Amino acid sequence: MKLNQIKETCLYVNDLEKSKAFYNGLLGFPIIGYQEKRHLFLKVGSSVLLCFLPEVTKLEKELPPHYAYGKIHVAFEVPEGDYELWKKMMYEKGIKILYEKEWNQQLKSFYFEDPDGNVLEIIPPGLWH
Amino acid sequence: MKLNQIKETCLYVNDLEKSKAFYNGLLGFPIIGYQEKRHLFLKVGSSVLLCFLPEVTKLEKELPPHYAYGKIHVAFEVPEGDYELWKKMMYEKGIKILYEKEWNQQLKSFYFEDPDGNVLEIIPPGLWH
Repeated sequence: MKLNQIKETCLYVNDLEKSKAFYNGLLGFPIIGYQEKRHLFLKVGSSVLLCFLPEVTKLEKELPPHYAYGKIHVAFEVPEGDYELWKKMMYEKGIKILYEKEWNQQLKSFYFEDPDGNVLEIIPPGLWH
Repeated sequence: MKLNQIKETCLYVNDLEKSKAFYNGLLGFPIIGYQEKRHLFLKVGSSVLLCFLPEVTKLEKELPPHYAYGKIHVAFEVPEGDYELWKKMMYEKGIKILYEKEWNQQLKSFYFEDPDGNVLEIIPPGLWH
């Protein structure tokens, strides 16, 4: 039984406008859905990033309730050769890089946070080969 | 600035052995990493699903700390034509389907839970077109 991919990854946020300003305004992720006081959906390549207000989706009536509190980790894979461009963009946009890690095969990744403290990572292709 | 995909999606669990029995044993996700008392990593098509013990990664020293509590939602995309096979597998494995939803274009998805109450969904290709 095969799977294509994890299509939807969720983050739980406190303020959708702040999330929109960060993910769409600063990082440039295209918005593919927005419902005031509920959610913001963004396109991340072949995946979708869903930002929900946990107090709202916790009380979901039709769909199963879901929510979380904390600092969720998510890693975004950039195209071959674009890693340094993304690092440069962080400096240009004033987004603080928390840490850069060197993994196997000299591949590097770096970490930063969204407005809610979720721990985001930019990784190059091949890190999981 | 393009992105390939969300490569790493995290869940925070209470018992790695239970997660292993569920994700690998029941659902058949291949294990690509395991560290006792820290993490279980699974392959989900082109993505990776990372299960962490939040009490451990909260205290991370080198990498930025991350953790979450609640019921995180994740959706797995299955290959074209495999949706009903996955539904059948749920019955065969004794995994309770919480809800089935009909979306646009007659496309359906169904929801179920992991041992920690994380809200999983099986979706067909095209749901986000």
